[in-house]
This record gives sequence, C-alpha cells and structure tokens, in this order.
Amino acid sequence: MQRILSKTLPEHVGETVTLAGWVHRRRLLKSVAFLILRDAGGLAQVVVTDPYTRTRLATLTEETVVEIVGTVVANPAAPAGVEVTEPTVRLLGEPAVPPPFDLYRPALTAALPTQLDHASVALRHRTRSAALRISAAAVAGFRATLDGLGFTEIHTPKIVASATESGANVFAIDYFGTPAFLAQSPQFYKQLMVGVLERVYEVGPVFRAEPHDTTRHLAQYTSLDVEFGFGTDHRDVMAMLREVLAGMLATVAKRTAPELATLGVELPTVPARIPAVHFTEALAIAGAAPDEPDLAPADERALGEWARAEHGSDFLFVTGYPMVKRPFYTHPDPDRPAYSNGFDLLFRGVELVTGGQRLHRHADYLAALAARGEPVEPYASYVDAFRHGMPPHGGFAIGLERFVARLTGAANVREVTAFPRDLHRLTP
Amino acid sequence: MQRILSKTLPEHVGETVTLAGWVHRRRLLKSVAFLILRDAGGLAQVVVTDPYTRTRLATLTEETVVEIVGTVVANPAAPAGVEVTEPTVRLLGEPAVPPPFDLYRPALTAALPTQLDHASVALRHRTRSAALRISAAAVAGFRATLDGLGFTEIHTPKIVASATESGANVFAIDYFGTPAFLAQSPQFYKQLMVGVLERVYEVGPVFRAEPHDTTRHLAQYTSLDVEFGFGTDHRDVMAMLREVLAGMLATVAKRTAPELATLGVELPTVPARIPAVHFTEALAIAGAAPDEPDLAPADERALGEWARAEHGSDFLFVTGYPMVKRPFYTHPDPDRPAYSNGFDLLFRGVELVTGGQRLHRHADYLAALAARGEPVEPYASYVDAFRHGMPPHGGFAIGLERFVARLTGAANVREVTAFPRDLHRLTP
Repeated sequence: MQRILSKTLPEHVGETVTLAGWVHRRRLLKSVAFLILRDAGGLAQVVVTDPYTRTRLATLTEETVVEIVGTVVANPAAPAGVEVTEPTVRLLGEPAVPPPFDLYRPALTAALPTQLDHASVALRHRTRSAALRISAAAVAGFRATLDGLGFTEIHTPKIVASATESGANVFAIDYFGTPAFLAQSPQFYKQLMVGVLERVYEVGPVFRAEPHDTTRHLAQYTSLDVEFGFGTDHRDVMAMLREVLAGMLATVAKRTAPELATLGVELPTVPARIPAVHFTEALAIAGAAPDEPDLAPADERALGEWARAEHGSDFLFVTGYPMVKRPFYTHPDPDRPAYSNGFDLLFRGVELVTGGQRLHRHADYLAALAARGEPVEPYASYVDAFRHGMPPHGGFAIGLERFVARLTGAANVREVTAFPRDLHRLTP
Repeated sequence: MQRILSKTLPEHVGETVTLAGWVHRRRLLKSVAFLILRDAGGLAQVVVTDPYTRTRLATLTEETVVEIVGTVVANPAAPAGVEVTEPTVRLLGEPAVPPPFDLYRPALTAALPTQLDHASVALRHRTRSAALRISAAAVAGFRATLDGLGFTEIHTPKIVASATESGANVFAIDYFGTPAFLAQSPQFYKQLMVGVLERVYEVGPVFRAEPHDTTRHLAQYTSLDVEFGFGTDHRDVMAMLREVLAGMLATVAKRTAPELATLGVELPTVPARIPAVHFTEALAIAGAAPDEPDLAPADERALGEWARAEHGSDFLFVTGYPMVKRPFYTHPDPDRPAYSNGFDLLFRGVELVTGGQRLHRHADYLAALAARGEPVEPYASYVDAFRHGMPPHGGFAIGLERFVARLTGAANVREVTAFPRDLHRLTP
C-alpha cells in the first residue's frame, strides 16, 4: 500500500492508510496511548488501545523510524480533525537513541553550540527545518525571476590562482603541488561570462577565512550572484535587484506559508521603488562624522530605523560608497570620482547585498590597479579579457544565510545554516 | 530608446530600433558594407552605405562592443528576412583586440588548450555558448522535476574534516591551522538531511584531485545530488532517476531548441522503463571475465551498443555491483550479500550516474567499517547520526559536465565546462 503523508490524512477519512516517519512523541494515558508521528508533511496522531501495541510503544523511543498502517477517523478534538486508529506498527530500522534535547517541545532549548554539535538531529526541530525550507524557496524565487528575465545559470571555479577581493581572509589549498585559494566570490568569472551570455547568475558556495567570531559571518556561505551587461549604471542594477527580491519573497510566500507561520514571520513588502540615499547623506542620517569612509553596524541599524520611519520600508539602498572602500573593479561616479557607482542594500538595518557598476574598459582596469599600487600579474587572465570587448555591466551578490536570518528573525546566521563552518567549527 | 535583442527584429519592420552587442564580423564590399552584430539573441545584419560610417567600420574590430540605432527593413535575402539600415554606431567601450581565433567561423579551429587559455572569448563562439545554455536548462529541469516531487534544495559544507569516499584524490586545505579537505561529494550530508527533510537535492561543486589526464575527469565538477527516504530498495532510486532524467531532457528540449540545432543534437528518449542488467550479466554481455570486479570503459561501450541494439535505448542500468568496489555506506543485496543494491547508469556507453540504496542502521555502519578494517573515528559525526533514527534511503549523483558532453557529442568534458580545472589547469 502506497505511503501517504500526514498532511493528506483529512482526505482519507474512513480508509486504511500507510504512514511512515519518526516517533515524535508518545503519551501513555491510563486508558489510551498516543503516538505522534512526524513526517515531511507534519504530525499525525495515532491512537493505541490494544495492549500488545501499547507494550511495544515502550520500546519505540523518540526518533525511531516506523511504518504505521491504520484507519483514519474524524475526531474534531484531534489535531487537523483526524487521527489514525487500530494501528499496526512496523519498525523500519532500529530503536533510536533519543537526541540530547527534546525535539517535540515548541522551542529548542539547548544552547546553540550543542544544537550545532548535533546538527543532524537539531535540524529536525520544526523551527530549524522551517528555516531551511524558507531558504530553499528563496533560492527558487531568485532563479525563477532571473530565468524569466533571460538570465543563464553558470557554474564557476571555486579553486583559483589568486584572491578575488583582497589578499586577506583566503583559504590556501595545495593544488597538485601549486599554491591556490578557495574563491571568495565568483566576481571575476561572472563578469567574464557577461561577455559570453550577457546575463548570468550563480548560486554557490563562497569561502572567507573570517578571523572574527560574529553572529553574521561564516567561513562558507551561499552567495546568490547576478551580473548583467548593457545597463547604463548602478541604478539599473538596483532596479534589477528590486525585481529579484520581490520574486524571492513572492516564492517564499507561495511555497512556505506553514513554515512562515511556524516561525511567526511576517514577510516584508518590497516597495515599487526602494528608497535610496547617497553615502554622504547616510552618514548624516546616522549621525556619523562626515569624513567616515564606511558605515559601522550601528550606523546601519540607525539607517534601518530611519527607512522604516520615513519611508515605511524594510529596505534601503545606500549608494555612492567611497571608492577607497570598494574593490578595484568598481566603477566610479563620473560626476564625483571619489565616490563609486557601488551600493549596499540594507535589510532591516543589516547589510544584505553589495553591488554596483563595474569597470568595463581594459585601460580603466590598468589604471585602477596602478592607482592602488597593485600589480596586474595576479589578475592577468581576468584583466586581459577586457581587451576583447566587454559591455558596460554590473551586478550584485546576496548572502543567502544572512537574508534568511534577517527574514526569520534569527539572531545568528548559524541558526538557519544546515552545517555551518566557522573559526571553531569544521564538523559535523 | 529601449534596446531590443536581434531575434525580435522581425517584429519591428519599419521601426527605428536600438541594438547593442559585439561586432561579430565586417564585410566591406564595393558599394555596401555589412556589420554583423552579435547579441544574446543571435545575429543581426546591419547595412552601411554612408561613407562616414563605412570609414569608422575599419576601426570597429571584431568583438568591439557597440550600440546601433537604425531602421528595420524587410529583405528576404537577409538572415531571418530582416536587416537594419542607415545605422548610427556608438562605441560602448574601447575598440577590441581581436581574439587569437575567429569567432565567426562555423567551428572553433584552435586547439582545445588554446581555447581554454582564452576561455572568456572562446566561450563566445556559438558552439561553446550553446553547450552552456543546454547545461543550464538541464539543471533547471533537474530542479523543477524534484521540486514537483516534494524535494527540498540544500547547501552543504565543501570544507570537511575527513574524506568522503576514500583517502585518495582529496585536496588538502589549511582550515584556520587545522588540516581539512575539500568535499569529494555531499554524500554524508545529503544522507543526514534525509533524516530532516526526507527528500533533498543539491547542485554544487565537488572536488577530486584526479591525478589522471582524461577526457572525462575534472578536478572540480558540478554534481547533481539526490537523496530520499522511505523507498524499499535501489529500484525506487532507479525509478526516481528515470523521472529526473526525463524532466531534464524535457526542459532542455523546451528551452534550448536553437542551441540543440546549432550543435546538431538529437535528444535521446528516456524509455518508460530503462533496461537494467545485473553486473554479472553485464560482464557476460561485454565478454569480460566473470571474476572481474568492475567494468572497464571498453565494457561500458560494449554495453551501450548492446542496449541500443537490444532495447533501442541510449540508457542502461547496471545493478548489483560487487560490494568490494562500492563505498562502505552501500546497502548489500539481501539475497546475494557479495553484490550491492548499488547501480550505475550508462548513457551511450559511458557511466553517467552512480547510485543505490544506503545502509540506514547504525549497527550496519559499524559492521561495514569494521569489515573494511577502517576506524569509525574519522566518520564519527556522520555515523553517530544513524543512532538517532534514519529511514531506509537511497540516492544518486549525476555528473553535469559529463551529461552535457555525452548529450552534445563533445569529445571532452572541457568543451562544455566554462573554466575547467584539471591536473594542469588552474587559470583562467
């Protein structure tokens, strides 16, 4: 008999069905016992009255995997209005060793490091698996939006000969006896692919040897990268990002309503036009000194509050970051060359996306590297490509874990990452 | 004026339009000159008659990026029946240095190493970009099929504490002073996630320090990984793989008809039931000795021919590979324990997919490692998870580049990989 998922039980009242899943919880009352079964669809209440099965229930520890054959009965007092009665229970593996924390309680009470040490069971908690499903829906929305706009997905090398962003924070690797690095971003490759396919995106891991132990940095995270050609400047990139964010949130809303309810998440609205302030205005709004070269986290929080109060928006663009704080491939603002055509997007007061217009002329790359006193040689295979005709272009990168954390109100990106990697964590 | 793509020109006859793209080719005849413009949509013929623009054309080397404003005129003799006349031409960057090979010829004639050295321009050739678009469509079909079957996409660590498959062929990495490795597959993680989400998939890079220089191995490739619980054995996995392959090919057919035509590809049909032979039969069919523990590439080719001749199928399952040649997590055939519930799928005589049923009982893992004389400790965080209740499960992994190469008839996986990594190649 074909197994069904618990969430479809209301369609099968009066039928004999097969369920399979994990023993989520047992409740042994005087006259009756309940087995709460968990599967990918949710929970099912199984009512046990016969003495033999009741006795067996004692050996079916929480998290044991079982198959249940029983009759679906309507019961308005039961969850979802149905329960399964007269079950036969078959063990599908071995009785489980219960995990070091209770998965059936509304919240995981174990400390985060304990949860992460036992990630493969902690993730089974509904709050943790809900975040993973929301994450998957966000990525699906990212891709669907871009596919609809004529973008092509690419896959680029994660082992590279030179650092992408700067010499710092790279992982070194022995590549057949040659020193190499893990890619900090697909930046160079996605730009080169604009020369091939015009509009590209990549969803993939990026690696940062972050020496800091913060709630928003990981040594590996999933970067949602976009790059496209033939725009005019960074404003086209910002408009594209707005579409992509709206598409991500629409898919999250469509696919994961139960998970959003589990986490008590109210999705933000993406304004038709996301408010934008120039970096110099942003400093003033945040009350920072006008000669600060960057925004501190406290400044970002202040700007997030300002955007909410002034524009009713959870999102705020900060444009025109100083060139000195942006990577060499950043296009300057033609009217104010000390400022860039680069932007950050703040989401509820945290930097979520970095993007901008890039240089596209070979001569500009040579000049930019020279101005920074950097040699061309480490970047040769990248910079040389610009001799062969590249259109004006730009793009952005969204940090997936940071997006989901901010969306779900998680205090730490590790809460929404299946198996995080950081300064102290290489397993599981 | 909004830029349009060349492929939409027939909808704009009589209008003034803006095109933008690369100078694909110039043809200077006595009375008229032609500029063939290439964009993401294809080619457009631009007719130049005025002396000033004709003179400028001499400076617009192949691959220069330009914007064209002109009038669309029907001309049955022109490609697609339309051409653009009376153009004004605006340079969008610098005049390009022509690449070391002609992109406008029907085939790239440069040797493969030369193409790979100059990948960012070689990929602009229609044959190379067509393969990349087909690849993207195949992945889109993979995801769409699995999303429709209740799977959730996951992202797992690429930096791991111990080798996944065996001690050989791993890249070593310095992880904050601790020795670590690049993941050879997401095998362990996707299995653990079956315990969380039941049905999962991942599209991501995997890393193999392949010491061999062959036409079908890369040091980094894109693995399409699937794993799911609550099946009975490997036959459920094979049935799932059949659905996924059919979905991939359907999306390729739907999205990339022009690219398939460019490459002269006829898509294979996936039989409703892909023929399957047991490993012992496969040896006999291939004429190999009955005590061989594995199939040689020549055996696979012979089996591919046999499947085509006997079953009219480009696909063939070989089941029941000897346990000695499969990894420790492989589930044995309960009736013939020297053979596994693992399979390979051959596509046109080449191994394309490996899959099977996995062990799901903690005790079986301990026994399997002991039987191989391997310690448990390096696998502890993986094996321990099986104490906490795991359902019967299985899965498979498709090598994307190998699939696309075999599909498009490419002799070498490097021809369908944007920036391949191998024993000798770390750039571009």
